Amino acid sequence: MTKSMFITFEGIDGSGKSTQARRLAQWLGDQGHDVILTREPGGSPGAEDIRQLLLTGDPDRWSAETEILLFTAARRDHLEKTILPALRAGKIVVCDRFADSTRIYQGATRGDLRAKVDALHQLMIGRDPDLTFIIDMDPATALQRGLARGSGEDRFEDFGLPFQETLRHGFLALARAEPQRCVLIDGNRSMDQIASDVAAHL
Amino acid sequence: MTKSMFITFEGIDGSGKSTQARRLAQWLGDQGHDVILTREPGGSPGAEDIRQLLLTGDPDRWSAETEILLFTAARRDHLEKTILPALRAGKIVVCDRFADSTRIYQGATRGDLRAKVDALHQLMIGRDPDLTFIIDMDPATALQRGLARGSGEDRFEDFGLPFQETLRHGFLALARAEPQRCVLIDGNRSMDQIASDVAAHL
Repeated sequence: MTKSMFITFEGIDGSGKSTQARRLAQWLGDQGHDVILTREPGGSPGAEDIRQLLLTGDPDRWSAETEILLFTAARRDHLEKTILPALRAGKIVVCDRFADSTRIYQGATRGDLRAKVDALHQLMIGRDPDLTFIIDMDPATALQRGLARGSGEDRFEDFGLPFQETLRHGFLALARAEPQRCVLIDGNRSMDQIASDVAAHL
Repeated sequence: MTKSMFITFEGIDGSGKSTQARRLAQWLGDQGHDVILTREPGGSPGAEDIRQLLLTGDPDRWSAETEILLFTAARRDHLEKTILPALRAGKIVVCDRFADSTRIYQGATRGDLRAKVDALHQLMIGRDPDLTFIIDMDPATALQRGLARGSGEDRFEDFGLPFQETLRHGFLALARAEPQRCVLIDGNRSMDQIASDVAAHL
């Protein structure tokens, strides 16, 4: 019997969070739960269209302000069309990135916008995950993995190692600030070890 | 000698406001002013990309909430990349539609969102025009003109006549609510008559 639950995975690019999200969804499914696996930006047809605008092009294609508006638009669509219907149907939703990514990425580039990011989230989204796994790992290794993928969606990785270091500290600070919702996971281990650590928390 | 100024044109589709915006920009240029003519949604390369998402597809492609986020993202880009640089350079900016369109269109479809629209404008835009011309005309005639264009960008016209009537009343209420900024123009006349009426206000 599934109890509806909204679980997110967060961390820097290349931290292995997408793999862990997939593995958790698989594991929960194997246990007989009704699960959907989704991701941001994207996760619904409209949000995928917005994702294309966000993740391609020059690093300075959008200002930080425009970027948080586009991420919030994609998130709103994703929430309405994918996440909330699944939760209402009693499913477990496992999501690769959610609002915390916007908070941390924008906090790292434009710290003065953090208050706007939070106000925008309150105004237009207003839904936080029930549980968030933050996969923490060495930024140099993570960066190498992220670039190695060569997905063409590397606008953020383009900012380089100091940026990844700042992001990591942002995610660590988030884990400390919201311990009731966030679980910090050591990502510098084998995928199997990490996956059983994540599963142990459920 | 040009004094920088931000002028917008508003009204229902087919009211002739785009024509009047173009004619005013032309007239001001003829008087020796430094003028740019722009429009929403769009008005900058990034905003044009967002415009494509907004004006094509099914009428219910986006929820009202997602829509106001996308319009605000496009507006933010337009403001930063086109409008503010021109104003800082001392130019007159003539713009076909701006934030009032979002207020009125969303007010007509989802009146309960008006407070969110205003809060979002305050938070992420924070700039109002110095002067707004509202071209008022018979919705049945305007609707016929708008559809006759067959631009493929007729997602809003698809809502039909009762919707256009509601929009018209929204624009009339705006003109009453902000008489210091808004000038109501009778659009049921020849283009020349309307153009000289607009010019007379400058």
